[in-house]
Amino acid sequence: MLKNNEKIYFSPNLNLRERACFETGIKLGALYHILCGIPISSDEKIITSIEKGIEAAISCQPFVKSVKIKIDKSKIVGNKSTAFDYDEITGKIIQAELVINYENIEVLAKIDWIEDMQYPLMFIEKITNIE
Amino acid sequence: MLKNNEKIYFSPNLNLRERACFETGIKLGALYHILCGIPISSDEKIITSIEKGIEAAISCQPFVKSVKIKIDKSKIVGNKSTAFDYDEITGKIIQAELVINYENIEVLAKIDWIEDMQYPLMFIEKITNIE
Amino acid sequence: MLKNNEKIYFSPNLNLRERACFETGIKLGALYHILCGIPISSDEKIITSIEKGIEAAISCQPFVKSVKIKIDKSKIVGNKSTAFDYDEITGKIIQAELVINYENIEVLAKIDWIEDMQYPLMFIEKITNIE
Amino acid sequence: MLKNNEKIYFSPNLNLRERACFETGIKLGALYHILCGIPISSDEKIITSIEKGIEAAISCQPFVKSVKIKIDKSKIVGNKSTAFDYDEITGKIIQAELVINYENIEVLAKIDWIEDMQYPLMFIEKITNIE
Repeated sequence: MLKNNEKIYFSPNLNLRERACFETGIKLGALYHILCGIPISSDEKIITSIEKGIEAAISCQPFVKSVKIKIDKSKIVGNKSTAFDYDEITGKIIQAELVINYENIEVLAKIDWIEDMQYPLMFIEKITNIE
Repeated sequence: MLKNNEKIYFSPNLNLRERACFETGIKLGALYHILCGIPISSDEKIITSIEKGIEAAISCQPFVKSVKIKIDKSKIVGNKSTAFDYDEITGKIIQAELVINYENIEVLAKIDWIEDMQYPLMFIEKITNIE
Repeated sequence: MLKNNEKIYFSPNLNLRERACFETGIKLGALYHILCGIPISSDEKIITSIEKGIEAAISCQPFVKSVKIKIDKSKIVGNKSTAFDYDEITGKIIQAELVINYENIEVLAKIDWIEDMQYPLMFIEKITNIE
Repeated sequence: MLKNNEKIYFSPNLNLRERACFETGIKLGALYHILCGIPISSDEKIITSIEKGIEAAISCQPFVKSVKIKIDKSKIVGNKSTAFDYDEITGKIIQAELVINYENIEVLAKIDWIEDMQYPLMFIEKITNIE
């Protein structure tokens, strides 16, 4: 039996690079929406645990070679000086770096808050054919 | 001032079709993770409201031409016969159809539960250059 | 067979009012974290669809008598003047009103952004014994 | 200036125990909906990272004395034998234990999948007045 014969569902006009870009987008969209709304404080240990936890989760997804999440601590409001003094993750503080490896294509993509766009941009920084 | 000059962040080696595929992936990844965990029952009105609500949300994202969500009612367990008799959205019941229009490229993509893979597959069914 | 015999799991020291308050908290916590991160624009139809969709979902949960979500339009940034000109739901714009009915107890609870706390407070405004 | 004067928003008829139960519910509702949909595999290190990450997040919330998440490994399908062979967190595999301390009240609450209810029940196991 042929398991994971997922290719039959894709357009035959889609080449390997296009497929790799599609897979990259899926992971960034997922990563972002999993992170949004998660409570956080400026405590270094809390931040690191959350980063590692969601990295571990995303690393389970297909074709993920590596994933690194960096919450921008400088923008977190809240150090638990009172019960209500903490923050929640939004696009303003999410930074991530993802490497997707689909067949012989490798894609390096990022999420970063672009100040002059006021937008958490997801973009492909590098796409290469591996020999 | 040039707003939304997002292209400068992308690799110059990325062509329009590849960018369109990336954007398509982002939206499907987002849509899927927004839906997961939402309470639902088999009541037609409840299902339709949830579908319309998340369609409206996804339609706000960049380059989305259309989006259609179809929760697979036949697989929903729970008709509120008791307080605890309802279900939650998972990949098993999510069906979606998305059209992305990036510059002159149009991408038709879907999410569907593939029984023999036991997987909620996201795939590109069609990619076309619009004249 | 006794289905939904959930009471056996609860402390016998918990009275009806306490249980009702617990159930109220569950729903507000769920509602809030389902909403966080959902894309939105200032378009009235988009806002209403999202509100109705999540209201329908929460109404499936146990003991929910009514639920009303009001996204604070005045604070939404983004009217889709460009592809990237839209917003995402955070605690700053979530307003909700929930009525829980557990046995003969009715609880009215709310979520609102409290400006001087800089916090999306969840609170019980009224708790009554129904005759 | 009085910060965190959140008590003025609550009904004066609400006693300390009721407030503590309400706060407990909020955290369980949040915890549950943050976890739902997160990718996971049966790899022990992946599971532990995700557990620790979401525990760290929930520990930031008001009145949380301790929180322990246990994903039920025995029910996870997927050990990454292929790209698509992994799972996603649902109520079926979430186990959690939370202690809330509000003023002199301590509440021990849990989430567990109750097989004969087919439901991820949230319940208060113990509520005590601390001297």
